[in-house]
Formats: sequence, structure tokens, C-alpha cells
Amino acid sequence: MKILGYNIDLEKAVKTINEKKYKHVVLQVPEGLKSHVYKFVEFLEKNTDSRVIISGDPCFGACDVGRYELRDLKIDFIVQIGHLPIPYVKNPVIPMVFINAEADVDVTKIVEKAIPYLKGEKIGLATTAQHVHLLDEISNLLRENNFKPVIGEGDRRIFSKGQILGCNFSAARCIADCVDLFMFVGSGSFHPLGLLLSTRKPVITCDPYTNEVKSDELEDLKDMILRQRYGAIARSKDAKVFGILVGIKKGQQRIELVNKIKNILDSNHKKSYVIALDYFSPMTLESFREIDCFVSTACPRIAIDDYMQYETPIVTPVELEILLGIKKWDEYQFDEIR
Amino acid sequence: MKILGYNIDLEKAVKTINEKKYKHVVLQVPEGLKSHVYKFVEFLEKNTDSRVIISGDPCFGACDVGRYELRDLKIDFIVQIGHLPIPYVKNPVIPMVFINAEADVDVTKIVEKAIPYLKGEKIGLATTAQHVHLLDEISNLLRENNFKPVIGEGDRRIFSKGQILGCNFSAARCIADCVDLFMFVGSGSFHPLGLLLSTRKPVITCDPYTNEVKSDELEDLKDMILRQRYGAIARSKDAKVFGILVGIKKGQQRIELVNKIKNILDSNHKKSYVIALDYFSPMTLESFREIDCFVSTACPRIAIDDYMQYETPIVTPVELEILLGIKKWDEYQFDEIR
Repeated sequence: MKILGYNIDLEKAVKTINEKKYKHVVLQVPEGLKSHVYKFVEFLEKNTDSRVIISGDPCFGACDVGRYELRDLKIDFIVQIGHLPIPYVKNPVIPMVFINAEADVDVTKIVEKAIPYLKGEKIGLATTAQHVHLLDEISNLLRENNFKPVIGEGDRRIFSKGQILGCNFSAARCIADCVDLFMFVGSGSFHPLGLLLSTRKPVITCDPYTNEVKSDELEDLKDMILRQRYGAIARSKDAKVFGILVGIKKGQQRIELVNKIKNILDSNHKKSYVIALDYFSPMTLESFREIDCFVSTACPRIAIDDYMQYETPIVTPVELEILLGIKKWDEYQFDEIR
Repeated sequence: MKILGYNIDLEKAVKTINEKKYKHVVLQVPEGLKSHVYKFVEFLEKNTDSRVIISGDPCFGACDVGRYELRDLKIDFIVQIGHLPIPYVKNPVIPMVFINAEADVDVTKIVEKAIPYLKGEKIGLATTAQHVHLLDEISNLLRENNFKPVIGEGDRRIFSKGQILGCNFSAARCIADCVDLFMFVGSGSFHPLGLLLSTRKPVITCDPYTNEVKSDELEDLKDMILRQRYGAIARSKDAKVFGILVGIKKGQQRIELVNKIKNILDSNHKKSYVIALDYFSPMTLESFREIDCFVSTACPRIAIDDYMQYETPIVTPVELEILLGIKKWDEYQFDEIR
């Protein structure tokens, strides 16, 4: 099925549902596809004997494998559209399938346009789930132009070669030492920013939708974000009460890290409370007015991306260590879930 | 422990935690008590060997028995403060205890003040969890003034005699035929409004905090709410696409009702989709722009109380039947979970 310029292989879900005779299916889609969710429902109901329920809560990524409570609603299968799986993260009570949304774009032009920016020979390639299927073609185009493309293999959180997540850049970091720069294919600035901060290598961003190539702009954004992060740390220097945030979503549960942070705060004579949350919003955190600084162990985007939305500073685990003087500012690292 | 004028018997939780040697406890508190949650954490950690995690997601009632995923965070016990249990609603994987917040108020004055309003002899008593312990004293005061107080027993959703929930007025409805009016003890207008709509008897509200007695105001509010509900139904008369909302929280899962509504809409040739939701907010529902009218089977307050916040009309199951001409407007009933 082709929607909004993406190829979505719903046939794969249909096949499994028919084979396993699933009757009650839940459909998870990211916000960007929600206005088209009805077409998915109709396709699945037309081609299978199942009834489909739409999951209405936001689904930001494969870390959200559906509420276990769905089982009470007789759900026997979950279809998540728009993400590649995080291989070790599964709903423990309901089987599920991930259907990627593969961008149907021609990359010839953007690669051509990127070539003058590629100062070096060995080019690391990194991209998001929607574009991993384009990496072979991009590699070929680069080779034709006498570059040596390199694609890294990620850790256990990564499904596909060259794929990066907002919370995991392992597929790029593992090749950072042997490439001259990275070429990021995709849209948005959060992923290339993480790539830049995580690998400390130059990053050229290539947006195949707008046909724009950028490099300096990302450095400017990095400087701005780092200033914000420095500000968040500085604002929390005198914090007396800390709130350690732990995510409830299956792929964000870092309880061992929470315990480590709690111990660090205890030994630094800082009062702290652990707060478990499913859905993070400024409204939810506002209820905790007594907290001077939150330390988030859940999705790294919460601290970085949504910084301006929250009144109380939210820092990442690494930033807390800088705040407490355990690490130095020049050891700054992007928070990742590994 | 006494907080904000409530007696909260946290000793009960301490006893169970120590007896069962629970080590990892989650604490759920309603929004109104969230600014005091730190005192509960400290009390529990001081008096037991457990570590306490605060549940940061909003907890509106005993229908929310904690996410099953908490088990992944090694949680072995849940303490929910501020609500009486819904007897048949339990977290299926983690044992829990409910600690009521009992209002520490003197009811002598408010009963005295209410007496001139009590036109009749048999007075039905109804109240919320926070005041059920006061019903005996109120009964005695009424008897001393030659009234005959009557307290009803609720259905399986109700823990205590005379207790009403925003979604269940069975403890009042069962005695409605044999009383002249109801006396509601507590604050806020949602519960007495439901009491009025559910029993169709006069309701005198007695707020022991402000020491105010009201009767006509509630009738005015009822008229306003009914006009709003009539408006919501009228606005949905031409709706082509319906979204049937089903709650994921354990105590709000009405999947059989969802199926019934789906069948009704099908046989009325109306297109409909089922949407499962944990946390209802205007932002979440805004993603479903193609829906002309939502039918909520989750918490009845969503349709009634938050009416003004939502752009798309939300109707209750009974209201849908009125909308489709299956029921008449004068058969209007407040939605209840039974």
C-alpha cells in the first residue's frame, strides 16, 4: 500500500493474521500517519477475518510495544506501522509485527548534490528506518563517484545496518574511527544532531524530500543545543530535590540506571524521588512542583527535544554527572539507550 | 497520617509491606494529593524495607489499578491512596492496597444547616469515598431531628454503603423509590449532578468544607448540562464517521458495550472505528480529524465534564441511541459503568 509517499507492506500483516487466524488486532501508527489509519483498518478488515482496533495513544517508536492491558480487550495481535522493531523489545503477552514505512523517493539527485560537500574518501552512511532500503543504492552512487561508503552494524537495539534511532547511534559510532565524515539521509534535525554529538565527526545531511544538503547549519544547531544543555545543567547546580524519571514503555525501562543515579545522588547528599511515567507531558510533570531538577532515564528526546516546553530543567544521566562534578563538560555525551 | 484535613491510614500499607516483605512499591495518588506524595514516600521507606517509586501518570480513580508493565520495573506491590477499591477491579499481576483519604471534618453544623431544606421524612444519604465514614454520624443527627435516613447498598462496583462514584450511582438508585429526597455530603458538583440525573429525586448538597447547603443551584446546573448534552447530540445528527472509544484502564474496559455499539452503528449504515485509549486528552483525540462524533465507553466524565475542551462532540452510549432515534430524549440517562 502506498500512502503519503511511503510503501507500507500491509500484505505481510495480512499473511500472518490469516495464517494464525487472529481475530482481534490492534493497530499502532505514528502521529504522522494517523490521518490515514482508516485505510489500514479497512485493508486489514477486508483481507482478513479480524476486527481492528486503533490504538489512540501516541506511538513515538518501537519502544512502545502496546499496553499489556490490550489483552483484556481480547486483542490477539498487534500491528505497528512506521517503525522497524527494536529486536529485544517485545510485548510479552501479545504477538506483534512491525511494518516499516519505506520512503518511495529517488535518491540520485540528492546524492549528486551532496558530492561537492563530501571532503574525504570514506563516507559513513546513517539513516532512519524509513530510508534503510535506500542505502545500497546510495552506496553504489557513491562508489561510482570514487568514494568508499561504509555502513555500520548497530548493537542489539538496532534492526537494520546503517539505521540510527533518536536514542541509539551505535551503527554510526562503531565506524566513526574509520570514516572521514557521515552522510545522513532523511529529514528532521534530531537524528543528524545526535549523530554529530555521538560520533564527533562532520555530518552532511541530505533530505531527499526537500532535496536540500546541509552541513554548517547542523554545527550551528549543535552549538545552540549544547548552550541549552549547559544552561539546563547550570540552572540545576543548586537543585536540592531531584526527580529521577523512569519510563514505563517496554523499550525505555532503564531501572538499573535509575538505581545507579539514585545511589550517586544519595552519596552526594541530594534528596531524590523516583517517578515512573508512561506519557511525558509538561502538564504531568507540573504536578511535581517540589522537584528542582528532573533526571530522565526514559526517551532521550524528552530532555533534548522538548526542552523549551518544561519549566523545571530535565537533564540526562550524563548531564547529571557533569552537574555533580563527576564528569567534565568536555566529556559531554548524547544520552543513548544501549 | 493527617494531610490537608484527611486521615490517611498508611500504617495499613506498612503492615502489609512488612508482613509480605515487599521490596519495590509503587505509590499512586490523585492529583489533589500529589504535592504531598513525598511525605508518603518517606513514611513508607522509613517504616519498611522497601524502595518506593511514585507513579507519575494521573490517577483519577480506582479504575486505574496501575500499569501491568510496572512488573518489569520489579514492582511487587502497589499502594493507591485516596480511593476505595472497586471490588472486582484488580491489577492482575501485582498485589495492591487501597488507602482511603478520610475527611477529618465535623458534620454537625452542615447537617443542622441542611435541616430546613429537607422537605420530607425519608432522606437518602449518598457520598464519596472520602466521607463514607461520616454517614453513621449523619444518620444519628438526622434521627435526632425525626428524619428517617436511608443508606443504600451499591452493586459490585461499590465498596462501601452509601458510596457513589462518578460512574456509578447504584447505592442511591436502589433506594430512590423509597426516599423523599437525597442528601449528598461532599464537595464538587459532578457527583450530586449524577445523583440527580440517575435517581430523578431532589438532591440537597451539603459541603462540609465550605459549610454550604445547595439545592436550586444543582437544578440549574442540571438544566445547563442537559442543554449541552442535547447540543452534543444535535451537532452529531449528520455525523458520517463515528469513533467508538474504549478505555484501556482495567476498570473502564467495556469491550462488550463497544461491540454492541459497533453493531448498532453498522445496522444504521454508519461508518465507525474503534479506538483504544489509556489517557484521554483533547490533543490525543485531535489526531482523529476524520471522526465526526466520538462515542465514549470509557469514564463517563470524559463526555460530560470535559465537554468544552473537545472540538469534536463526544457522546455517551445512551446519547448515541437517542441520536439514532432508538431512544427518546425523555429516556435520557446518565452513563454508568455497572
